[in-house]
Formats: sequence, C-alpha cells, structure tokens
Amino acid sequence: MAPIRARTPEKTLKQHGELALIERIRLRARSTLPASRKRLVPLGIGDDCAILAPPAGSEVVVTTDFSLEGRHFTLDRHPAASIGHRVLARGLSDLAAMGAQPLSVFLSLALPRSLSLNTRWLDGFLDGLLDLARKAKAPLAGGDTSESPSGQLLLDIVALGTLPAGTALRRQGARPGDRIYVSGALGGAAAELAVVLSGKRSRQPSHPHLYPEPRLRTGWMLRERRLATACMDLSDGLSTDLAHLCRASGVAAEIMLDQLPLHPLSRRASQPERLRMALHGGEDYELLFTAPADRKLPRSLGGVPLTCIGTIVSARPKSPILTQIDNAGRRSALLPGGWEHLR
Amino acid sequence: MAPIRARTPEKTLKQHGELALIERIRLRARSTLPASRKRLVPLGIGDDCAILAPPAGSEVVVTTDFSLEGRHFTLDRHPAASIGHRVLARGLSDLAAMGAQPLSVFLSLALPRSLSLNTRWLDGFLDGLLDLARKAKAPLAGGDTSESPSGQLLLDIVALGTLPAGTALRRQGARPGDRIYVSGALGGAAAELAVVLSGKRSRQPSHPHLYPEPRLRTGWMLRERRLATACMDLSDGLSTDLAHLCRASGVAAEIMLDQLPLHPLSRRASQPERLRMALHGGEDYELLFTAPADRKLPRSLGGVPLTCIGTIVSARPKSPILTQIDNAGRRSALLPGGWEHLR
Repeated sequence: MAPIRARTPEKTLKQHGELALIERIRLRARSTLPASRKRLVPLGIGDDCAILAPPAGSEVVVTTDFSLEGRHFTLDRHPAASIGHRVLARGLSDLAAMGAQPLSVFLSLALPRSLSLNTRWLDGFLDGLLDLARKAKAPLAGGDTSESPSGQLLLDIVALGTLPAGTALRRQGARPGDRIYVSGALGGAAAELAVVLSGKRSRQPSHPHLYPEPRLRTGWMLRERRLATACMDLSDGLSTDLAHLCRASGVAAEIMLDQLPLHPLSRRASQPERLRMALHGGEDYELLFTAPADRKLPRSLGGVPLTCIGTIVSARPKSPILTQIDNAGRRSALLPGGWEHLR
Repeated sequence: MAPIRARTPEKTLKQHGELALIERIRLRARSTLPASRKRLVPLGIGDDCAILAPPAGSEVVVTTDFSLEGRHFTLDRHPAASIGHRVLARGLSDLAAMGAQPLSVFLSLALPRSLSLNTRWLDGFLDGLLDLARKAKAPLAGGDTSESPSGQLLLDIVALGTLPAGTALRRQGARPGDRIYVSGALGGAAAELAVVLSGKRSRQPSHPHLYPEPRLRTGWMLRERRLATACMDLSDGLSTDLAHLCRASGVAAEIMLDQLPLHPLSRRASQPERLRMALHGGEDYELLFTAPADRKLPRSLGGVPLTCIGTIVSARPKSPILTQIDNAGRRSALLPGGWEHLR
C-alpha cells in the first residue's frame, strides 16, 4: 500500500504543536495496520495506552532501543529516511533473534525545535520508518513526543513480537561441538558507514548501514524448524556478540577467519581491514546462531545465505572465551572490539 | 522485600562500562519480580528481548513516556530517587487510566558520563524506581542503556499492563448528562514543584510532585465495577486533559470551580493561584473520569477520595469545549492552559 501522505501544512504544525505532530503520525501510521492484523491491535495511537490482543497460546517478547543523534546517527550525514528505517530495524532485529513475529511497535520521539517545523524532514523520516513497518507487518501503535531539551534528535523504539509459548530462541543453549553460523554477510555496515561519514554519496546497490534488513523470516524459520540451539542478532559486532552468546551458554568458541562471509561492499579494503569490519564493525543486524554438528542446515533460509564460521568448545579457566584461527592454522585470542556504550 | 544492593565497586563500573551497568540494574531489578509473578515474566533482563506471558483471555496495554533532563526534571533540584520514581509513575498512571494491572516495565536510560560513574546517584535513582516497581507489582524486565551524547540524562519508560479482553477504560464513551469526577486532589504537584524549583527543601508530609502515586487500584476498581463511561489520567492538567477526553467522546464539559478538590499543599497561595494550579498545573497523576448521573459512586475508591466536579454536555459549534462556572454562577470558556510540548 502506498504511504498516506499527511496534508498538515507547516503553519498548522507550528500553531498546534505536539497535537498536530501526533495527528500527523497517527494518520500516516494507519497504513502500517492492514485489515488482516486489526484484531491483534484493537486500539492504536490516541488514548492513554494502545491495546494489543496477542493470539491465544503465544508469549510476547519486548525490546527497547535508543537511537540518539551524535551517537547512533548524524543529521548531516544520514538521510531522514535512513534514520527512520534504522531506528525500527534495530528493534525488529531483536524480534528476529528470538524467532518472533512483530505484533506492534512504539516510537518515542524528542525533536529539536527546528526539525519539528521541518515537514520535509519529518515526512522523509516517517517514510523510512513506515515503509519498513509495512514491509515487516509491524504496525506503529503509539509512542511519545517531546521537544528535545538539548536540541538533539532522540529516538527510542519499542518492538513487541509474538511466538508460540515456550519456543523462543535464546542466547543460552549452545553446547560444545555445536557449529556457529551467521546469516548474510559481515562488515557491510561498517564499510558503508565509512562512505557515509566521509560525506560521499553511498551508490552501492545494497545499503547494509543505511537500510539494514532485519532477518525476521530467517529467525522465524530457525525457530519453527528447531534448527538452532542458541541465537542472537549481530548489533555490536561478532567479537562482542559471540562473547555474549558464549557467556550466556557457559561455553567458548573458535572462529575460522577464512570462513567469514565478507560483505562485497568491503572488497576494496585490505584483507586485515575487511576482517576488522567483519569481526568488530557492528550493526550488520545479521543473525548469529549455533546448531548441532549433525544437524543438516539449508544453504539459505528466508532468502538469506547461512555460513558456518566456527565451532563451540568447552569454556576453560585461563583460556580466552573466543579464539580466532587464521588460514595458516595459527590460533590467537579474539578480543571483543565491538560497540559498547559508556566505555 | 528489601532492595538488593548492588556490590559493583566504582572501579568495575568504569572498566566494564555498559555491561557492568546492566548487571547492576539486573541484580537490583530481581527484587521487583516476586515468585508469584514469575510465570507472567518467564525471561527478564539479559537476552535480545524479554519474554512475557500475559494471562489467557487478557489484552495487553502499552504506553511509553519520555522523561528528559531540562524538560521533565532537573539534576540539581530533583533528588535521584524522585527522578527514578517519577519516570515510572508516569507510565503506571497510564496503565491506571485504562484500568489495567501492571505486567512489566522497561527502562531506556542514556547517562551523561559523569553520572555513569556516580554509584551513589545511580543507587538513589534505582531506589526510587524499584521501590515503586515493587509497590506496584510492576517488574522491571528490560530496557536499553547508552551514553548520552548531549551530556543530559535521558529516560524513556515503557509500561505494559493486562486487563480482561474488551474491558479497557477509554477516553471515548462520555455522554451528555454524565457527571465528571476526579480522584484525589488537584494542584498539589504544581504547588510542590514551585517549592522544589525555588531550591527549598520540600518538607510536606505528602509529595505529589516528587513522589506521585499512580492510581492503579482506583483505575482497576473503576473498570471492574463498570462505574466509568470514560477515563484518562491527569498528566498535562485538567484544562488540557478534559478537552482531550471531550474530543475523544465528541462532547463538551462544564466545570464547577468551587467543587474542585484543591490540594492542601497550595493552601498558602491566593485563591486564583490555587485554581490555576488545579486547572492548568499538570502532573497530578489523578484519574479523570465520567459516569452516568444516576450511577451511585462511592466517596472513595482504592483508598482515594472521588469528587464530582462538573457535567458533560453536548458539543455545539461555536461554543467552547470547556466551560467554567464560578461560585457566583458566572460562566466563561476554560481554555487549555496545560502542558504541551513543541508549542
């Protein structure tokens, strides 16, 4: 369905402030709730709370993620539509990691005064957000708006999903001997980010940084077919996230560097730089999961290739939690080099 | 149950950044999940998503609310515990307005670097947040942490509640002839805020601004006993919120000024100033609701007094949506004077 264009003229937004902004978002958000899903969201934007009706026998999974100007994106380098897309992709990727189907999403939005009057920017932002919401069948059902006291754009996304009770994919569950897999390719987001930050136009056919695709179908199928013993999404970088998975499962891991599926966007970089982007770059929003060695996995799932990149081993005191093995068979500790706030 | 004190020393927090902060919150949040509610929250903090198991036959209501330094609170005037309490009270009050019971809450927290190392401040903040969470049986099940790029403290609360399907209290539903009620007293939050902002210590026995009490029991009972035709919480001020309720219901309202339950904290102010605080002050977090004129309402509900303050009338073109009537019977338009962002 084509997005419903809001017709609120700039003057009205200025006169009526928050109410006009909410009305603008409410009108456009309607397109994210197809008739087939209305029984799951009996009430969207406009009351004290939204009302959701999860299917009988399901559990609800919930995640929240900040996207803050100057930390997760910039206003001068990121197109408005990319900012809207990315804030939602972060939340949906967490749902994919549990094997859940989106139920609805909520956006808290604190706008600098300049942007609150910039209907072109707002429409671009909503285009990016709502296009992905429609594609992922994730209706925008509410949120909050405020003026940003610091003058920086502040976004917080809440994503809710459903899955049959007791079936969620977890970070715990990986066992020694399990193979380690990733969906898609790694390092593409870091490669495109470098282009974006340099101020050049990103002209590649794919946009792993500006418009990452949350792997909802892949996660759902992994869970439905009981293929994975543990799963999470790659948001902070393989070296950081795999360590999280290992700690949650009480195991360690060995990674074969020459098996990493390097993203074609990094092909002009040196090999060490390509490896760095794949291991530590972060924000690839691919799935990282483990499966028993004797379980036959398809080459691709939900339209995305799957690649075996290593093996789960027993955790040993004084041994590194992650070991990398290069193509000459040399082993060394792989230290977490991914994204961590407040460090 | 006494709060579990985190034992993370300051040095560890500095070294380990976000992970140590999350671990600190996770340990302390355990105390908000009593054994009796564990089946409703099969998984809390620590995976890609939390997992919730709403009771069969229930709907889930969801609200999100920003609390931003410099807009909703100040770091120099508000005690850390008040900031923690208030951010949660905002979310729980929205659940109360629907007549819902808390299911769980999520906190997104962007800290300035200085506060991320200030364990005393962090513990005070968590004391305020988690004491209310325990009291309200609202387990903290997840969230997000980040460093604040602007150096200002940014908070976003997500509150989820449950209620029997199809029974939620809504803003719509008020009909001409219905009486208008409020719980508790009005203007107390504005009166205490004036003291707080002046830098004086707030020594009153009650703290409607620093520690507002979300009216969860009152809202739940209003819904269970089918007493109200429409309901919302008073967050932006009576003059703003009652207009929202009227617009949602397609009606207008008349308020008797001498029937407003003025909060004792404003007693030293002039009568016009007391009325201003009660009508426009905002953040009282009381419930505003309507009921048919022939429905007998108790004097108090859930331990909070109920007061009839006016009547719903038909909306007429060119007539004000809200009319105030003073003790001499003089009628005038009551214009929204409450809180609205981006205005």
